[in-house]
This record gives sequence, structure tokens and C-alpha cells, in this order.
Amino acid sequence: MMNTPLLMTQMIERAEKYFPKKKVISRTDRGIHTLTYKEIAERTRRLASCFEQFGIETGDRVGTLAWNHHRHLEAYFAIPCSGAVLHTINIRLSPQHIAYIINHAEDKLLLVDADIVPLLEAIKDNLTTVKGIIIMTDGELPETTLSPVFHYEELIAKGNPAFEFVTDLDENAPAGMCYTSATTGNPKGVVYSHRGIVMHSMALGLADMAALSERDVSMPVVPMFHVNAWGLPFAGVWFGTDQVLPGPYFTPKILAELIENHKVTLSAGVPTIWLGLLKELEENTYDTSSLRAVICGGSAAPKGMIKTFEQKHGIPFMHAYGMTETSPLVISSSLKSYQDELSDEEKYELKAKQGVVVPGIEIKIVGKDGEVKPDGKEMGELLIRGPWIASEYYKDDRTDGAFRDGWLYTGDVVTIDEEGFVKIVDRTKDLIKSGGEWISSVDLENTLMAHEAVFEAAVIAVPHEKWAERPVACIVLKEQYRDSVTKDDIIDFLTPQFARWWLPDDVLFLNEIPKTSVGKFLKRQLRQQVKEIYAKS
Amino acid sequence: MMNTPLLMTQMIERAEKYFPKKKVISRTDRGIHTLTYKEIAERTRRLASCFEQFGIETGDRVGTLAWNHHRHLEAYFAIPCSGAVLHTINIRLSPQHIAYIINHAEDKLLLVDADIVPLLEAIKDNLTTVKGIIIMTDGELPETTLSPVFHYEELIAKGNPAFEFVTDLDENAPAGMCYTSATTGNPKGVVYSHRGIVMHSMALGLADMAALSERDVSMPVVPMFHVNAWGLPFAGVWFGTDQVLPGPYFTPKILAELIENHKVTLSAGVPTIWLGLLKELEENTYDTSSLRAVICGGSAAPKGMIKTFEQKHGIPFMHAYGMTETSPLVISSSLKSYQDELSDEEKYELKAKQGVVVPGIEIKIVGKDGEVKPDGKEMGELLIRGPWIASEYYKDDRTDGAFRDGWLYTGDVVTIDEEGFVKIVDRTKDLIKSGGEWISSVDLENTLMAHEAVFEAAVIAVPHEKWAERPVACIVLKEQYRDSVTKDDIIDFLTPQFARWWLPDDVLFLNEIPKTSVGKFLKRQLRQQVKEIYAKS
Repeated sequence: MMNTPLLMTQMIERAEKYFPKKKVISRTDRGIHTLTYKEIAERTRRLASCFEQFGIETGDRVGTLAWNHHRHLEAYFAIPCSGAVLHTINIRLSPQHIAYIINHAEDKLLLVDADIVPLLEAIKDNLTTVKGIIIMTDGELPETTLSPVFHYEELIAKGNPAFEFVTDLDENAPAGMCYTSATTGNPKGVVYSHRGIVMHSMALGLADMAALSERDVSMPVVPMFHVNAWGLPFAGVWFGTDQVLPGPYFTPKILAELIENHKVTLSAGVPTIWLGLLKELEENTYDTSSLRAVICGGSAAPKGMIKTFEQKHGIPFMHAYGMTETSPLVISSSLKSYQDELSDEEKYELKAKQGVVVPGIEIKIVGKDGEVKPDGKEMGELLIRGPWIASEYYKDDRTDGAFRDGWLYTGDVVTIDEEGFVKIVDRTKDLIKSGGEWISSVDLENTLMAHEAVFEAAVIAVPHEKWAERPVACIVLKEQYRDSVTKDDIIDFLTPQFARWWLPDDVLFLNEIPKTSVGKFLKRQLRQQVKEIYAKS
Repeated sequence: MMNTPLLMTQMIERAEKYFPKKKVISRTDRGIHTLTYKEIAERTRRLASCFEQFGIETGDRVGTLAWNHHRHLEAYFAIPCSGAVLHTINIRLSPQHIAYIINHAEDKLLLVDADIVPLLEAIKDNLTTVKGIIIMTDGELPETTLSPVFHYEELIAKGNPAFEFVTDLDENAPAGMCYTSATTGNPKGVVYSHRGIVMHSMALGLADMAALSERDVSMPVVPMFHVNAWGLPFAGVWFGTDQVLPGPYFTPKILAELIENHKVTLSAGVPTIWLGLLKELEENTYDTSSLRAVICGGSAAPKGMIKTFEQKHGIPFMHAYGMTETSPLVISSSLKSYQDELSDEEKYELKAKQGVVVPGIEIKIVGKDGEVKPDGKEMGELLIRGPWIASEYYKDDRTDGAFRDGWLYTGDVVTIDEEGFVKIVDRTKDLIKSGGEWISSVDLENTLMAHEAVFEAAVIAVPHEKWAERPVACIVLKEQYRDSVTKDDIIDFLTPQFARWWLPDDVLFLNEIPKTSVGKFLKRQLRQQVKEIYAKS
């Protein structure tokens, strides 16, 4: 066979050549922009042609601090297709962490949304490698203490619309980079290769996975600064899919309007996003009939939410699983043909699991002592390997903890049932160890979420003299229930569904659950918060 | 990213682990067999464990001479997953050519269907490398002069059901091999790598391509001895698809019954197969409502046939294009979403084209002098490159003619329209050069096929003093029209549809058109036949 490399240049060139009329609908700070792939490709070539003047060489990192919009999409291809590395920076991290990762990645150039300029100004004196900042805006350059700054549109206006992408690259050359928060210490960097991104995009197009198609209108709600918006912008370009990019500071209302106005067929985001959308759909009327799939990952979606989407709103819901280290799609939930025969209850039991491993990826589970567990009911830590799984953290000692013997140790405790469906039981560090047995905080949370009064629920371990740890439930009630639901109501609700010793020792009603920058429960902080509550009482 | 190799072992292990209940329905010489993937995987491991006793080492070739059935499918995986190379031999080639390719590939072992034993006996004295022959049959070993022979079922009964597949292979290691007929001389060998087969299987699963899914029941009618039955058996195993393998000596009636009885959703074959099926569907009643796609390749499908499938029988028809050298899928025809707005006539015009290039593959067209033609209306030779395209003919001087500057020169003259749809105009060698201009035999043939009286039509060049070459149409009429249709009727039918100088100088009515072993017109032989007709007259 020919040894033609798997390169991202082929993806944007396919859109340019075969889907020039297809569209990217982009919400920016000033309104809705509609550009065709012909226009996007030309602007991408213009941008790619500009990097040389900043001294960017093959393999150099170029950072982005930006929302989901067409300019970010152009950068998504212009940077890797000129041989450099697209480093998407999570703008929700703390300023110190942002400074750390820009310096650690040695970004030479940053592309930044106008509204993020103040954030950057606050850390500019700590940046050691950045030589220039390109500001992405519909309007004028904002006043800023940053220097030197360039206006994206003015810059590309002078660029070369016929710039030839760099294709003499090895397919294993780095194309992208993303840092992921660590429980303690600085974020850890993950490098994506051209090969990994191409293979991962193929997986998104598989009929049994996301089945992304030219016929879709794809709206990645998951931020483009977070694991490449799960790879949807890449695959969408390759397959000629119309894309709706929801821009900065969107609300559930804005999302619902985008879905209705642009006939979105597929969208992807974390459970928090979908909880918000559900609330909006309950309060106001929208036509969401175009949606053929809502993909949910990042953390487990409660069964009740999946049911509401499907049964009340007729929106098919697809659970998926991945991490920054896994590009991210590795597990996705499509029922097998013969599972159509199951009862509704059995189907939702399966849909609440994360799903079956994607072709090309291998998984296994190991117990506390590293022994491989056969698939079945037993819990174990999930291990993953495959062509779009990271092999290390970028220049980081913590590599050894997570990457061993050719496998990624995910830190997620899961079960795999006899049909191959993976179910997240917990994070290894969030499992509650009570009297030598494990209690899954996630199982308790999912059940609590099915209570009609519960808006959000997180279960954490609190230290216990006799049992080592015991579970405590932290609950945010829906507004209309705030005065009427008691601790006993909650425990009574759980009692028939769990072994006695799994029942939480306490139920705390909070106003909110602390979350990470990407909407996951911040259990470390919650544990601290609960400790303080008990210290005061 | 991890450098985990793309290996076929992952494909069979995925079926074994996650789709053990899914089925392979296989028609052999003695009836219908239904095996689950659990059984297929175990039998595959048993077979793989047997090769060592025959001295088969990594990289050695093992040949198969067999129809489409479950034992052939087991060999499809057992051979490459033990590190050897699956060499599928086209049983329709001449005995001399079969002997040539077995010797040229240096097959050490052959797996042969019982009914093909006589063919092999006829050439056994010419075989220089074969050390043993395994006979695949439901019954007893046939009496034979071949030696040593082994009974497939007896052999694997003693094999190891827990044999571990060989996974310390480079992804570029050879996995398969197939010889393709040449216009003159011996067949030319093409080697498929593990990587190529894995990538090609992914392409078959893409939503906009064949969209092969666990939910499908796939029936490859195209023989497993011809370009791996277009890769469907590989991809089907990977995705957990039910497969129907139609076995030896099937008729259109048998195919129609298999479709009805097993609710086949997707099938693939050459136009001759589909013409036969259409005839059967016209004569007898079958329920074919399960079919969501009939994939047609090998040679161009006439527009009339596509229309009849879709409009009369409600069976969606998908044109595709490939060659032995291309694994084969490189171009496939799915209308773009906005093309739904076209008139029926415009849609069928597009569906009669071969389609749009598959993600991962690149194409371009060049003129007579090698200059690249922009996509548009101009004709040129189709060039292809990509990760599942061969880079050479196996140990063959003819490599230089077809593989140049990193591209495969297909020998097919095509146009690519502004939407990227490729249309085969002709084989470079079958184009009719009349007065310095090109006439496409394929265009004339497709139009002739739309005439209600025409069963098959082939147009060839005959030498002409003034114009160098002129077209002559060779036509097989449907039985009921054999006495009523004249040459003038045919020319009158063509006249409004073509420039005057494209009209054939003559129309010959034949009983059949000579075909290659895989059902393509054998134009070389037809030209010879026509020459003789004119010599006699």
C-alpha cells in the first residue's frame, strides 16, 4: 500500500473542493455570520500564510483563547496545516494556570477573542515565549496594554488566498495540544498528532458512532478550547457538514433558538448544558424536531434526563465517554439491533451507561492489584489504548502515573456488562470506601437525580471513625421545592433502591455544587466545603 | 499519540467480544449454515493454530480457492491474524493463470472448496511451492489425486480454540493479496496491508459511504476471491454486522430468496448480478423491502437499471467505483443534501455517475500529456492516491506503467463535475478516437441500455480508413424483442441524444457479450469477434 500520511490538510481541502457551498454559521460578539466552506478555506489559507512573518516554524505552538466561532475554526486548520501546533487554551482556568500552560507549551503566538484580552493583560508580565497577539473580533482593535497586537481581519486581508498547505509532514507529527486540569498541581498537556485527529474524525463518521454526515447540521456546544470540541469541527469540515458555532456567553435560550433557526441535527455537550436546555424547553416552546442526536459526555448523564429528552421531547440522546487524553471519543452508546426488543426500562438502563468501545480502540479493566478483570459485573479501573490515545503528558513527570505498559490508566472505575456496555462507577479517587467495601458515588447521584425535586446531586465521602468513609449527599433542589423537601424524603426515596449500608449518612441542601471549568463536579472543593459546614455546626 | 498498529486482529476480536450473538448465514454445497460470531471466532482461532504444523511463517502466503461462505470468512481472518498473507485466488481465471499466480505468490498452503478440486488437479503438476491442500466441505473428503490433502473440519477440530492471534506486527505488514487480470500477459498481484484493510473498513462504515452498521444484514454477492468481496466481510466482522454469504453457483432466484428470507439490508455486486436480479424480480414476487442499499461497482451501471431499482422496486441503488489496486472503495455516490431539490431526471443523471471521492483518498485527472486538468467538463485519466491504494504490482515489471510519482494511473478516462462527481467516460484503451476526437463507448452503452428492448450493449471501435476509428454497437436483445427490433430502430433511438458523428456506423445483434471472470465486458475479445464477423460478411 502507498505510505501516504494521514494529514489534516486533506480534510480542509476536501471541504474546499467538494463542499464549497456548505456553510458555517457562526455567532460572534456582534451577530450571526454565515460563511461557505469556500470562504472558510480561503480565509484559512490566508491565515496560514501569515505565520511565517511571526517566525513560526514547523512544530512551533500557536495558542488560541477563543469561543466557538468561524475564526477559531479557521485557526483549527490554518495552524496545523502550516506545520505548526494548534494549542487550544481553556479560558476558564485560573489566570495562573493559563500563564503556566502558555509558558509550558512555549506558545510563540496567541489568537485571542477581544473579550478575553483583559484576562491576558492580567498575566502578560508572566508570559515568557509569546512574541505577538492576534485579536479576533468583528469590530475595532480594543484598547489594550498587550503588545504587539494585530487585528485578525486586517492581517488575513493581506494574506495569500492561494497559500499551499504544508504536506511534507509525518502523520505522527504534532497537530494539536490541549491541557487538562489535574487534581493537584498544574494542568497536564496532551499532544494530538495528525494521524490521531484523522482517525478520530473517521470514528465520528461511523454509522454506529456519531454517524456525522454531509447531511447533518452539527452544533458543538462543548467549547473549542476543550478537547477540540470533541473533534466535531474537524470531522464536520472533512465530511462537508454544515456547522453552527454558538459563540461566547450563550444561554439555553440562545441554544434553543439556534437549534430551531438553523435546523441543527446533532449537538454535543456536557450534562449541565443539557439540563439547562431541558429547563428552557419546559418553559418555552421551540421546534427541535430537526435534532437526530444529542451527544452527552464529560460526565455521566442521569437516566431521568435521558428519558425526558427522548420521551417528552422526542430528541434521541447518545451517551459517550472520553477524556482529554483520548481525543476524546472512545466509547459511545448505540443500542444493538436486538436490544430494540428490550422494555423501555431496560433500554434506559443501557442508555444510562456510557456505551460500547469504538472500532479501533481497545479497553480492559483491572482491579486494585492490577489484575485484569473479565467483562461482567465486577468493577475495575478502565484502561484504554489505540491510535488516538495520548502516550504521555507533554514534558511532565506525571506521565508515569497514567501511562503504563502501553495503556492509559483512566482513573475511572467502571463495570463492563456481558454486552460490552461500559458503565462509569466512579473516579478511583471519588469511590467511597466504607468498611472495606466500595460505594459508588455516581450510582447514588444518578438515582438522586431521578427525584422530581432534585436539580443536582453530588455524593462525597466524609471520614468516619468506624467505617473509614461514609457517603454524604449534597443536593440542590429545584426552586419550587426548596421549602418542602426534607432529608428524610430523600433517604426514603433511596431506601428501596440500595443496600442499607449504601444510604448516605447525611443529606445537605446547598445552593450550588462547585464545578470545574468544563462543568464537572469539583468534588475536592465540595469535600472541603462540607468539612467546613460540619466544623461550624 | 500511542503508536498502536492498525491490525486485523482487533476486528475479529471486537466481533468475538462485543457481538458474540450476531450471525453469519452461509450457503454451502449442502445447505444453509448459521453460525454466531462467537463460533466463527473460535473456529478462526482453531484454524490459525493449525498453520504452524504446515511450516507457515510470518509473511508466508496461504491461498484460497473458494466461494463466499463461512469457512472462507474464517480463513479471511485466521491467515492474516496468524501473521501470514491471505491470497485469494480468482477461480474463474484460466488454469494456466491460476497456476501462474500460485507459483508467483509462492503459496505454501491452499484452502480449496471441494468442487474446485478438479480444477486444481488439472494444474497440480505445475505447482512448485504448495506443500499441502486443505479441502473445505460439509461432507467427506472427495477422491482426489492431490496430495497431501486435509479435511478442514477434521483439522480445526484438533486446533486450539484459545489460540492467541499474532499482534507483534507492523501495521504495514502484508495481510492480503489478490491478482488482477491484465489486458495481455499474466495477472498482476496486489498486496494489501493490515493498515490498508483497517482504514478501508472504516471507510465502509462512514455514514456518507456504505454506512455499514451492526444493524445491517450484509450480503456480498461480489466473490470473496475478487478484491476481498470489496472489503465487506472484513468490515462486517468489525462492526458486528450479520452477514449472508451466498455460496457457490447461486442464481438470481437464490439471491432473491436469501434477501427475502434473511432480511438483507445491503448487498454488493457488479451490474450483471443486478440485471439478473431485476429480471427475477420482474418474473416472480419477493419481499425485498429490507434492502436499504444495493451497491454496484466493477463497471458502470446504466441509468435505466438504477431507475428501475429505485422507482419500480423501491430499492435504493448506490454506485461505487474501485479497482483491485484500490482495495477497492475510492468513490461512492451519495447525493448531497441540497441535491434533494433536483428533478428526478437530474438526480438519476448524478446517480449514474460513480460518485464523490471517499474521505482519506485523493484523486486528480490528467490529460494525454500528463497535464493536470481542473475539475469541470474536460476528460482525463483518473489518478488516485491514499492509504488503501497499492503502491506496486507484486514483483512485476508492469509496476512502472501504473504507479508513477506517488499516484496510481487507473487507465480510466473520467470527467469530474463541479460538484466533485466522477463519471467514467471509458477505459483509456476503449475510447474511440474518431477524426482526432474522442467518443465515449460507455456513454453510448448507457444510453443503449435505456432502450426497452436492449438487454446488454457494448460499443467498440472498428478501424476506419478516414476517421481512424468508428463506433460499432453490439447488442443483446431481450428475448421477446429478438425478431422485432432493427438496426434503424436503434440508431433512431440514439439520434436525438448524441452528436451526429458519435452515432455508431453499425449495430450488430449478438446472443451474448463476452465477459471477464468478474462480469465485465471483455472488449478485446469482442473486437476480435466483430473483426471475424466482418471478415466473413
